[in-house]
Amino acid sequence: MKTSLSIENHAAAPPRDASWEARIFAGELAALGVQHVCICPGARSTPLALAFAAEPGMRVWSLVDERSAAFFALGIARASGRPPALVCTSGTAAANFFPAVIEASCARVPLLVLTADRPPELRDCGAPQSIDQIKLYGSHVRWFAEAGMPDAGEPYFGALAGRAVAAATGTPAGPVHVNFPFREPLMPASSGEITVGRTAAAAPATRIYPARFAPAAEALDALCAALAQARRGLIVCGPLDEPGFAEAVTALAVRLGLPVLADPLSQVRCGAHDLTPVVAHYEALLRRNALGEHAQPDVVLRFGAMPRCKPLLQFLQQLDCPQWVVDAALPWSDPTLRAAAIVRADAVAVCQALLARLESAPHWSAIDACPRSAAVAALVDADRHAGDGLRARLRASRELNEPRVFVELAGLLPDGTLLYAGNSMPVRDLEAFWPVNRRHVRFLCNHGANGIDGFVSSGLGAAAAHDGPVVMVTGDLGFYHDLNGLLAAHRHRLRATVIVLDNGGGGIFSFLPQAGCGAAFEELFATPHGLDFRHAADLYGAAFHRIASWEQFTDTVAAALGAERLTIIEVPCERERNVELHRELWKAEDPHR
Amino acid sequence: MKTSLSIENHAAAPPRDASWEARIFAGELAALGVQHVCICPGARSTPLALAFAAEPGMRVWSLVDERSAAFFALGIARASGRPPALVCTSGTAAANFFPAVIEASCARVPLLVLTADRPPELRDCGAPQSIDQIKLYGSHVRWFAEAGMPDAGEPYFGALAGRAVAAATGTPAGPVHVNFPFREPLMPASSGEITVGRTAAAAPATRIYPARFAPAAEALDALCAALAQARRGLIVCGPLDEPGFAEAVTALAVRLGLPVLADPLSQVRCGAHDLTPVVAHYEALLRRNALGEHAQPDVVLRFGAMPRCKPLLQFLQQLDCPQWVVDAALPWSDPTLRAAAIVRADAVAVCQALLARLESAPHWSAIDACPRSAAVAALVDADRHAGDGLRARLRASRELNEPRVFVELAGLLPDGTLLYAGNSMPVRDLEAFWPVNRRHVRFLCNHGANGIDGFVSSGLGAAAAHDGPVVMVTGDLGFYHDLNGLLAAHRHRLRATVIVLDNGGGGIFSFLPQAGCGAAFEELFATPHGLDFRHAADLYGAAFHRIASWEQFTDTVAAALGAERLTIIEVPCERERNVELHRELWKAEDPHR
Repeated sequence: MKTSLSIENHAAAPPRDASWEARIFAGELAALGVQHVCICPGARSTPLALAFAAEPGMRVWSLVDERSAAFFALGIARASGRPPALVCTSGTAAANFFPAVIEASCARVPLLVLTADRPPELRDCGAPQSIDQIKLYGSHVRWFAEAGMPDAGEPYFGALAGRAVAAATGTPAGPVHVNFPFREPLMPASSGEITVGRTAAAAPATRIYPARFAPAAEALDALCAALAQARRGLIVCGPLDEPGFAEAVTALAVRLGLPVLADPLSQVRCGAHDLTPVVAHYEALLRRNALGEHAQPDVVLRFGAMPRCKPLLQFLQQLDCPQWVVDAALPWSDPTLRAAAIVRADAVAVCQALLARLESAPHWSAIDACPRSAAVAALVDADRHAGDGLRARLRASRELNEPRVFVELAGLLPDGTLLYAGNSMPVRDLEAFWPVNRRHVRFLCNHGANGIDGFVSSGLGAAAAHDGPVVMVTGDLGFYHDLNGLLAAHRHRLRATVIVLDNGGGGIFSFLPQAGCGAAFEELFATPHGLDFRHAADLYGAAFHRIASWEQFTDTVAAALGAERLTIIEVPCERERNVELHRELWKAEDPHR
Repeated sequence: MKTSLSIENHAAAPPRDASWEARIFAGELAALGVQHVCICPGARSTPLALAFAAEPGMRVWSLVDERSAAFFALGIARASGRPPALVCTSGTAAANFFPAVIEASCARVPLLVLTADRPPELRDCGAPQSIDQIKLYGSHVRWFAEAGMPDAGEPYFGALAGRAVAAATGTPAGPVHVNFPFREPLMPASSGEITVGRTAAAAPATRIYPARFAPAAEALDALCAALAQARRGLIVCGPLDEPGFAEAVTALAVRLGLPVLADPLSQVRCGAHDLTPVVAHYEALLRRNALGEHAQPDVVLRFGAMPRCKPLLQFLQQLDCPQWVVDAALPWSDPTLRAAAIVRADAVAVCQALLARLESAPHWSAIDACPRSAAVAALVDADRHAGDGLRARLRASRELNEPRVFVELAGLLPDGTLLYAGNSMPVRDLEAFWPVNRRHVRFLCNHGANGIDGFVSSGLGAAAAHDGPVVMVTGDLGFYHDLNGLLAAHRHRLRATVIVLDNGGGGIFSFLPQAGCGAAFEELFATPHGLDFRHAADLYGAAFHRIASWEQFTDTVAAALGAERLTIIEVPCERERNVELHRELWKAEDPHR
């Protein structure tokens, strides 16, 4: 949708009003590469809404529920790697952005939050829909700016946009909040539909070259020394979405003879890179006390955030050896509290610099991977064997259950698929059951604050920006929490497949001691909702399938991947049986071996 | 639902853990009169959830979506006048409370927000579901406390609860945030189901006597002098929910010979008190330039927040005369920015003190209402006449429309009904079209920040605490925004009637200049959703009726008032016709006179 709205090309200067200011700002964002804007309806935000709509090439997503809109923008940012703009009117609208702003901050996702506000004379005096929006998101944004009024001048509004983009895309990336006091008139002075091209007279944008964080030479020396001395080592890759990382880290691992425990969210578990050192089923191995025999490391090198797998955290916490964490910026990524060293640098830069050092420096190039390679091969063999065992065990029964969904999807999803996993159990099962394979599947999750909120919108936002199939896997509570997000698919004809693992409540709680607290458990923790999501699909015009067999599941997913609209696929499961099944799986050896 | 959980009565001291601390805190709140708790599912919040569930007499509302839960608590607080507790786990769960927290702050509604958090060793290190919750709500709470760990001792946790209640119920009332760092174990040491009575050994609660804000004698003298000199005066009552206010202000008005422009949210427009000076249809009179002839005041006395009616604000802004505002506390209630004086005192106290002064002091008791009474009578007559005209005009056609909903409800709702009006158009139409009558109907609205968010939950929360029928009137966007709120009615079998004025988008924008901006208007402002809410009713097990005639409307509402479950009544309307109708109504004189 594009509105036509313009600066007329006559000699008279355009009026310096809210619309003029918004056009300069939006134009500068467009020049800086912002391609998507999510706009929530409102009157006070009219100048921004119309300015973005008038920007050629800008993709405009009109979204009604601000909470969903913010997660939709987050999904766009995750899928595209660029900051989208997010616009709302004054009042609690802006407060509804807060959950997604926090997720963006924790997960380092760039986001430009633009809120309209009342001018000073309408603040703190009981005027309607005016709240204190100054520093509304507190410590959860990289930068806050209270925009000036139009008399601050054209260079100011251009530079304001530049600074917002620079702050959102810095290291760490994250959300930025610019609050705009707009005084009436809120509509442009030249009414009617007038053609425009670019945002007119604005000076060329300030181009921003973000810093690259290169590792310090002393860090590389010390790390090489640690690796050279180690009899055995371990690389752990957690959530990370840095282009080229999978290639870089696996090349390093092969050169050093180290295994790589790869969370799917590291994008290292699957793809076209060298998968020989990659280990997927560390949870199964750890729970069966089978990791230690192959991987009692003398040194650990960690990249990205910590994987969610609790036994892995506990394993790392009890190790005696030095643990190196590569992490360019805060927030701190070491919940073990045991790191020997933190290397402040980009992950790819560290891998490449280590490899270069191993090639070029004579004393390092003598490091030989061979002595360690046998152990790696044994561990990788154990991993593949564990995976085969889990799959065989799951496929031995016709029972519908949550882990097998990931096993089946791993065989089903074509190259170029983006899989968005819900928090709580889905992302844990993804990590535990998704095997190493060559499919080019990208894995996303709201792993910053680990909330179940905003899931539908996050996935649909990713679908709006991703060129290829998008599959979302969520629990039923996560699906319910953001049902409103489905409206975006309805209004904007988005294609995606939502798989709902419906166990009628919060399945993760059944794994906790709280499950033993009697009558209160169902009411306070499991919170069974009794909802038939078929009605939700009807409400939002989505296709709906409730699965009764695994054949139906694979057929339905395959069809949904090519469908022209949103498909919701419900897999009915049972909470108590799910706990039991997980326990069986962790105990089991491969029945066929 | 009640869980049994206890301190065992043996000599050994109970373990000083998170559960112990939560029991003391919850017990003290119960002793201080907290009767409702809204609990969202989560693991970290287990100590608080179980402690509240074990409190005898505590009504526990388990709610899944934290945003809806917070508005549900707000509705309880509004209906009951007492602070409910609101509990969630760590992470973005707490951020979802933010919109309701802001509404509570702006509208002075007491709320005890209790968030579970990780202990220091799990903060800012990449541990899951941990975000910075310190001062999470910024300037939008009356008080923030980071709770200590159990070693802070029993008196501390009791006093912490007392301070939270005192801050929430002070002047102005509002939300309070206590953040609890809980270290494992999160379950009580004595597992299994054990009977408990009250929270055990805790010392008796600190009783809190809130201040009463009495007017300063100088203020009363000056105000009496201003009233005595005035040839004509005007009392304006905006949103206010102070017991006894309607009686007090109307008695004062009659004594002084002043008309009372009464917003329904002042609770002065309807009821058993003296209605002779009460004026309802000031919007119609103002838009027809007919208020000034009866009420060109020499003095204005305002109580409560400013009514929403924009012509009234504009009328007050252009007056020359002194305007007195009675308001005990911030936030400032004078968007006219013209107040001659602000009297910091409770509204009832001011009315009663003025009346007492008029009775007792000889020079004041000489004030005679008579010279002004004729003007009041003329204005009230014009008001009743305008109301008759509006009703006649609306009833002259069979057309379904938004204003007539309020006209019909005014004749339908029985004494004891609580009417919760949605923001945007419903509350404006309520103010414009609801007549003066003797029905005892209580009017609520989220008038603090005027958001459309959280409406369904606010109304259902009120239904949870109100003893009598609850009717909610909302636009379709407001209904969509909080569809999730319907789950509470489903899970807790709440009775209420939701009337949805469905014009397929944001009807209020059609009244603004934005309506002229072409193709962008529908997409960015009106945001038509195309939803058939019958499916939402099916999803949440509510009765659903789409109205086709006014006879059906009145019959359906009458039946819904006695129904045992939630009823959703949709009134199909048209956005453009609605604007036209309002313009016709403001132009029209009573056709029958």
